[in-house]
Amino acid sequence: MPTRAAKFLPLLLPTIRSARLAALPLRRLTTTTINTTTTTTMSAKKSAPAPTTKPAPTPASTPAPAATKAAAAPVAAAASAQAAAAPATAAPVAARNAAATPAPAPEKKERKSKKDKDDKKFTLKTPKGTTDFTPADMALRDSIFATITRVFQKHGGVTIDTPVFELKEILSGKYGEDSKLIYDLQDQGGELCSLRYDLTVPFARFLAMNGKQYPAMKRYQIAKVYRRDQPAMTKGRRREFYQCDFDIAGQYDDMVPDAEILAILVEVLTELDVGRFLIKLNHRALLDGVFEVCGVPTDLFRPISSAVDKMDKMPWAEVKAEMLQKGLDAAIADRIGTYVQRKGSKELVAQLREDADLIKSERAKAGLNDVELLFTYLDVLGVTDKISFDLSLARGLDYYTGLIYEAILLDELTTAQILAAKADKEKALAASGKAKKASAAATSDDADNDESVGIGSIAAGGRYDELVGMFAGTTKKGVANKIPCVGVSVGVERVFSVLQKKRGAAPVKANATQVYVMAVGDGLLPERMAVAKQLWEAGIPAEFMYKAKPKLQAQFNVCDKEQIPLAVILGPDELAQGLVKIKDMRAKVEGEASAGVAVKRDEMVAEITKRLAVL
Amino acid sequence: MPTRAAKFLPLLLPTIRSARLAALPLRRLTTTTINTTTTTTMSAKKSAPAPTTKPAPTPASTPAPAATKAAAAPVAAAASAQAAAAPATAAPVAARNAAATPAPAPEKKERKSKKDKDDKKFTLKTPKGTTDFTPADMALRDSIFATITRVFQKHGGVTIDTPVFELKEILSGKYGEDSKLIYDLQDQGGELCSLRYDLTVPFARFLAMNGKQYPAMKRYQIAKVYRRDQPAMTKGRRREFYQCDFDIAGQYDDMVPDAEILAILVEVLTELDVGRFLIKLNHRALLDGVFEVCGVPTDLFRPISSAVDKMDKMPWAEVKAEMLQKGLDAAIADRIGTYVQRKGSKELVAQLREDADLIKSERAKAGLNDVELLFTYLDVLGVTDKISFDLSLARGLDYYTGLIYEAILLDELTTAQILAAKADKEKALAASGKAKKASAAATSDDADNDESVGIGSIAAGGRYDELVGMFAGTTKKGVANKIPCVGVSVGVERVFSVLQKKRGAAPVKANATQVYVMAVGDGLLPERMAVAKQLWEAGIPAEFMYKAKPKLQAQFNVCDKEQIPLAVILGPDELAQGLVKIKDMRAKVEGEASAGVAVKRDEMVAEITKRLAVL
Repeated sequence: MPTRAAKFLPLLLPTIRSARLAALPLRRLTTTTINTTTTTTMSAKKSAPAPTTKPAPTPASTPAPAATKAAAAPVAAAASAQAAAAPATAAPVAARNAAATPAPAPEKKERKSKKDKDDKKFTLKTPKGTTDFTPADMALRDSIFATITRVFQKHGGVTIDTPVFELKEILSGKYGEDSKLIYDLQDQGGELCSLRYDLTVPFARFLAMNGKQYPAMKRYQIAKVYRRDQPAMTKGRRREFYQCDFDIAGQYDDMVPDAEILAILVEVLTELDVGRFLIKLNHRALLDGVFEVCGVPTDLFRPISSAVDKMDKMPWAEVKAEMLQKGLDAAIADRIGTYVQRKGSKELVAQLREDADLIKSERAKAGLNDVELLFTYLDVLGVTDKISFDLSLARGLDYYTGLIYEAILLDELTTAQILAAKADKEKALAASGKAKKASAAATSDDADNDESVGIGSIAAGGRYDELVGMFAGTTKKGVANKIPCVGVSVGVERVFSVLQKKRGAAPVKANATQVYVMAVGDGLLPERMAVAKQLWEAGIPAEFMYKAKPKLQAQFNVCDKEQIPLAVILGPDELAQGLVKIKDMRAKVEGEASAGVAVKRDEMVAEITKRLAVL
Repeated sequence: MPTRAAKFLPLLLPTIRSARLAALPLRRLTTTTINTTTTTTMSAKKSAPAPTTKPAPTPASTPAPAATKAAAAPVAAAASAQAAAAPATAAPVAARNAAATPAPAPEKKERKSKKDKDDKKFTLKTPKGTTDFTPADMALRDSIFATITRVFQKHGGVTIDTPVFELKEILSGKYGEDSKLIYDLQDQGGELCSLRYDLTVPFARFLAMNGKQYPAMKRYQIAKVYRRDQPAMTKGRRREFYQCDFDIAGQYDDMVPDAEILAILVEVLTELDVGRFLIKLNHRALLDGVFEVCGVPTDLFRPISSAVDKMDKMPWAEVKAEMLQKGLDAAIADRIGTYVQRKGSKELVAQLREDADLIKSERAKAGLNDVELLFTYLDVLGVTDKISFDLSLARGLDYYTGLIYEAILLDELTTAQILAAKADKEKALAASGKAKKASAAATSDDADNDESVGIGSIAAGGRYDELVGMFAGTTKKGVANKIPCVGVSVGVERVFSVLQKKRGAAPVKANATQVYVMAVGDGLLPERMAVAKQLWEAGIPAEFMYKAKPKLQAQFNVCDKEQIPLAVILGPDELAQGLVKIKDMRAKVEGEASAGVAVKRDEMVAEITKRLAVL
C-alpha cells in the first residue's frame, strides 16, 4: 500500500502548499541566501558575514517565499516561528581556499559543470526537510524502534532490507499524482534510479523476485523513505523519515491476517504510549458499492472517492461542492452523503445489511461480508473498541483492494480546530490581498495532494492483493503470479515528536558508560588505561580522560555530565598497596562513601559487577 | 577521514575497471538488455520473453562489456560466474497494461519525459551494485551490528544519525579523484544534494554545526553509504554498503584517543571472529619527512605518496617505475625505496631515530615521536602484536594529518596470489589481442582509484584534525574553529561475506516465534486466536495458521520449517475440560511427550514460560 503512510504527514494548510517544490524557479533565487534551517550554525554565529553583504553563490537555501507563506498560516506557527528565529543566518563559510570570491549568480549550465571546487562558500546545514539526530534523540528513537520491533517479532515477523533506491521504473505508476514527490537520482550514466517513496513497493518487488522462496511471509521493515514534500519539521513531517511496516503476504482465509494486522497496530500504539487513538476502517469494495448504488458513473469513482477522503478536514457541504464541480448530479451527491457521513461499529454493519438498495450491489455485499467477519475476529482479539467503521475513509491511491484503515491520535488537533485555523488564515490572507491567488493555489494543491494531508494520523494501511502481481507477471498458463498482501505502516516521526514533548527537558543518558577511571595526583595515565582495559575485558563499559594529567574536579565533572554511576579512583598510595578506590558517583554522601571504598585490584571487577547488578 | 573505507573494497583488477561508469555511453546500449543481476527473477523463469525477441526498452541493465571483461579476470571469477549464470534473463514484465508494446530505443530527452507510465515492461531487479537482504541475511547482519555496537558502547560511544543525502557542496572537494563516484540527486528544483559517500564528512559537518554543544564527542554510527564504483557483489563490494564508524573528536593529549581507537578496532575484529588480521600503521608527517629528506620536490609529495600506496599490490620495481614516470629522479626513488620497504614494530621506530638524515626533518621527528608514544600506550592496552608499523602505508586522500592505519585479513588473498592472478589475466588478454588496450585502461584506472583497491582490507582510519575546521570556519579573532578528530571505519560487508561463508548452509531461525497455536479437528480458529492473544499479552511470541480449518500436518510442518520450539494444541475434548496440550516440537520422542502434555488453560502461560526459560 504505497501511500498508506502519506497520511501520517500532519495537516499543512492548502496555501502553504502553494510554495511547494513543483516548478519553482529556485535557481533565480540563488543569489539571496536565506537560511531557514532550524539548526543554528557555529560559524554563522561567530564569523559568517551577513548575507546581504556577501551573498553566497549557492543554491542550497530555502527560498524566502516558502517561509513567508508558512508564517501566514496559524497552524504552522510553531514551525515557522522556529524558522524565523534565524532569518538571515546564511553561513557562507571559508573552506580550504579562504580566498574564494563571491561568484555572480551562476547559470544553470555553469552550475552543473565541475566548478564546485572553486566555490568554497556554502550554507552549513542539512538539506531541506532533513535533520540530524543527536545522541539524546537517538536514545529515544532506539527505544521506540525497540518497542515496535518487539511487538512485530512477537507476531512472528521477520525483517528484510532493500536498497534505499530502486530502479525508477519500479516506482513509476504506483503513487498516482504523488509521483512528483519522488526523488530521482541524477542520470550519471547507467540505470535511472529513484529513492524509495515507501517500503511497500520495494517489498512487493522483493516478493515478485523471490516468490518461490517466500510465497508467504510476515515481514517487518523499519527504514527511511523519501518524499519531496513541503516539510513541517516541528510536527515531524520531513522529506526523509522512517516508516515501520508490518505486512502479511500469502494466500490465507479471509480477514484472518487482516485482523491480526489491526491487533498489531493496537498493540504498537498502546505500547508506545502515544495517548488516545482510534483506527478508522473502511472497505474499498463497500465504498465502490455505495458509489454504484448511488449512481456514480464508473469513470468518476476515483475522483469522487478522492472527494470523500477529504471529509476528515472539510464539512460535508464543501465535499459535496467538490463532487458537483467534478460533474456529479446533486441528487447523487446527496445520496452518497447519506452513506459516507455514517460511522460506527458492528451495529453499522447490521444497519447496512438491512439496506435493500445497497445489498443489491455485489461489491457492497462482499465488502460488508468482509467487515462483518472481521469484527468477529476483532472481538476475539479484544480490539473492537479501538475501531471506528467509517464510511468516509477512502484513501487516495488505486491499489488497495479490500480493507483500508488509518490510525489517528485523539489528543492532537481536531477537525474543528483545523477548520478554525484555516478560517483565520484565510482572513489574514484576505486582509493582505492574497486571498484569490492563495485560494486558487489551494484548490490545485488539494487536488494534487489529498493523500498527504491528514489530521493527527499516525499509521495507515490496507489490503493490496494485486501489487505483487504487477511486478511478477503471469505463469506459463497465463495465471497471475499474485501474492495477496495486507499491511500497516506506522509513522514514527510523529510518534517521536509526541514522545519527545512528553519527555520534556529531562537529561538523557545517551552513553552506556558505567565506570569512569580517574586519578588523583600525578595523572597516572598508563595506570588508568590498564584499569580501563581490565574493565573492558570484563565487558564493563568504561572511560577515562584522554589527558596525561587531568584535574580531579574535571574528572568528577565528566561523571556528572555523562551520568556515569561509578568511579574507580587511582592514587599513588593505593597503587603501591595494590588497591583502587571505588566510588558511587550518584551518592551525595559524606564520610567513607564520599571518598570511595578501597578494594584490592584483583577484586575490582567482582566488586563493580556486584554494584552494577543492583543499579 | 572520508576515504578511509575505500580500501575495504576488495581488489578488482585494473582492466575490469576499464568498464567503469566514468563516461560510458550506456544509453546507446539500452536496446540490448543483459541482466547481470545475481538474483534470478520469478517472472523471468516463468513468463518473460527472451530479450532478443522482445528487447526491453529500459536503461536498467548492466552493459554486456562489463560482464565480459570481468569474466576474463581470474580473481573476479566467482562474481562473474554468478553473473554469467543468468546471462539472458532480462525480465520485461507486463505490469498493469499488459498491452504495452516494445518501444524503440528512446532518445535521451524522450526518456527523461514523463512517458514512463506507458512503458510497462521492465527488468525486475535491484539497481546495479545493490542487493536485498533476506530474513536469514538480516539475522546475521543484526548479530554483526550487535557485536560492533556492544564494543563501541563499551568504550563510551554515543550514536548520531545524519541524513542519507547532504548538500552537494558539503561533499565536494573532500574525496579528490573519487568524487566522480558520488551519487548526485537529480535537480528537481531546490537544493542540489548528493548521497553520502562516507560517514566521516557528515560527522565533521555535524560537529561544525553543533560544536558548542559537542566540543568533544565519542560517536559511533552504523549506516549505509553510496559509491558509484564497479561492484563485485560476491566479495561484498557494493554501491550501497554499510560502514561502522567510531570517531573521537576533541582536544586531547597526543596519541591517547588514537591508541584507544586502535584498541577498539582490535576488539571489534576479535569479537567478530573474522580470522587472523593485522593493522598496518603509518604517520603522514613521517612519510612527508621521508619524502623531504630523500629530496622529493614538494609538488610531487602527493603523487609519490599515491605511488607508495600501491606497494601492497605491486612489486617495488613497478612502484619505482611509476615514480620515474611521474618525474622523480631514479636516485631519489631508490632512496625512498630504502625507507618505504621497511616494516616492523617498536624496534623500527628506534632504528629510524638513529637515522641522522631522517631526524633532520622536523616532520619526520614529529611523526616518530607520535609513533613512539603511541607504542607505549599500545603496550599498556595489549594490542602491539596486532600492529605492523609499515612505511609503505600512505592512503589516498589529503586530509589525514597524523596517524593512518588499515586492517587486513591475513587469511584472504595474498599479494603473491593477486599478482599471479594478474599475470594470468594479462596472458589471457594478450592471447585475445586486447592486451594493449586493457593495459592502457589499467593505468588510467589505477591512477584514478588507488584508494578503492585493497587486498583483504577490512577497516581503515586515521587522524583528521582539519576537516571540521573546513566547515566551521574561524572565530571572530580569526582562530580556526577546529575540532581534532581520529577515527576508524569497519567495512561490514566484507565481514558479512566472511561470516556468511563460515556459517555455511545451516538453516537460520530468522523469526522470534516460540509457540505455534494449532488445532486438531474442526479448525477452532477463534479459539486459536484467543490462545495466541493470551500468549501475546504475556509477551510470548506466538503464531497460528491463518486458515479456518488447517490440516494438522500442515501446522506441524510450519513448526519444523520455522524452527518453532513449542506448540499449544487445541482439541474439542480438551477445550471442553478447560485444558490445552503443550508439546515440545524439538523432541522426537514417542508416548506422552509425543502427544503433548495437557495443562489447565489458566496455567498455560506459566508452563510455557517455565519451558522457554530452559530452552
